[in-house]
Amino acid sequence: MRIDVALVPQEIEGKNLEHVTAIVIDVLRASTCIANAIANGCDGVIPTVSVEEAMDISRAYARDDYLLCGERKNEKIDGFDLGNSPLEYISDRVQGKKLIMTTTNGTRAIRTAKTAPCVIIGGFWNISACCKPALALDRDILIVCAGQNGRFAMEDAICAGGFADKLSSLTDARVEETDGCLTARLLYNTFRERLEEALFQSAHGRNLINTGFGEDVKAAAVTDCVEVVPVFHEGHIVPMDISGSAKVHA
Amino acid sequence: MRIDVALVPQEIEGKNLEHVTAIVIDVLRASTCIANAIANGCDGVIPTVSVEEAMDISRAYARDDYLLCGERKNEKIDGFDLGNSPLEYISDRVQGKKLIMTTTNGTRAIRTAKTAPCVIIGGFWNISACCKPALALDRDILIVCAGQNGRFAMEDAICAGGFADKLSSLTDARVEETDGCLTARLLYNTFRERLEEALFQSAHGRNLINTGFGEDVKAAAVTDCVEVVPVFHEGHIVPMDISGSAKVHA
Repeated sequence: MRIDVALVPQEIEGKNLEHVTAIVIDVLRASTCIANAIANGCDGVIPTVSVEEAMDISRAYARDDYLLCGERKNEKIDGFDLGNSPLEYISDRVQGKKLIMTTTNGTRAIRTAKTAPCVIIGGFWNISACCKPALALDRDILIVCAGQNGRFAMEDAICAGGFADKLSSLTDARVEETDGCLTARLLYNTFRERLEEALFQSAHGRNLINTGFGEDVKAAAVTDCVEVVPVFHEGHIVPMDISGSAKVHA
Repeated sequence: MRIDVALVPQEIEGKNLEHVTAIVIDVLRASTCIANAIANGCDGVIPTVSVEEAMDISRAYARDDYLLCGERKNEKIDGFDLGNSPLEYISDRVQGKKLIMTTTNGTRAIRTAKTAPCVIIGGFWNISACCKPALALDRDILIVCAGQNGRFAMEDAICAGGFADKLSSLTDARVEETDGCLTARLLYNTFRERLEEALFQSAHGRNLINTGFGEDVKAAAVTDCVEVVPVFHEGHIVPMDISGSAKVHA
């Protein structure tokens, strides 16, 4: 089995992803928001690349049935219900709601990976939860780091290394690792005992701290605290069911 | 001073590079060929993105004055004079000649960086030679890893880390490092005592070994063996002169 890590989404733009299981990682903060929202019973997340697209999609739903979520330059978008702070995605707000979400990097990375037959959305919160079902699909694995504004983001690569580490430990197959995977694992093994410190050091982490979102950085560094496996399926992010196929609530 | 590393050239496509000194790295094998060719007295290297462009440019020169150089899928191009093996670029072949060179990754990376006011071509062979003149230009530094076919290549990032390490050690200024720079330095510090082994482990290194070019991988891992500082200036790669501006032989 091959484990590949794309350190920025541009590495895989236009590539044929038919034969891989993709895991998209945007630690700060989309992956973490999505994991929390799914764990707290939302009725799926629709990732969009623009505010306009989010508004357009919302017109198909009754006002009580959806929440508009997302950020631009870290801040909640004007007129939206939720920003991009994982701790906002509590049960009282999200349960039973369709979340229409636009974020700078995460939603774009998901779209780049969408030609893969299974696209899992992962972060530190759900590394262990995601790895077994990813391996059960019995394909090569491609981990896609969302990055930040087209540039490499260290926190995503550290988390990608955490996934590669866990995947390797759970399979009996011979694992072939690409250069990106070897580098991500080196990052993870360097920082695994001090993830919070690593995230605070990253450019995106520092930027969030400086704009008042330090608690989000701290929250994103928590490992294996939810059991959900969010998958992108026909435009919606929904929990994977135990058979490995997506349970679509749309 | 800021030291930035683009782990793949796509990270900087379309970005404004007016305020940085760029160092382009394609360890396997363009950077190493260019360093050797310049050290052995060639009359400059013209990087081209296609075989056709190389042929077109050659028509401006008398047949004795130029060599056509480069590879596709590792192998010398049919009808060309030299391939992409650094050890071919000996004085007897290259002295006094204009080298018109097309390679898969290196020449494309150079073109991506060309809006920077100074573009240095670096590899393990000339880390120390390049760093002092790069710092003397007194701008932020952007190191661009050429990668392989649009994907991340570990050997370029290790070398980028070597450059970042040397640059930091030579300056008294406070150095701000981007996530890409921190990652490249981590790679370099992991492998600095066993560079040849690291290059043999990389995907590109393994590919070269499998196609009979293992000696080139070994050669590329040698550190600080030439004193040349190749710079890309108005379409030509020429040695930088001691005042920091390019000496154009065109």
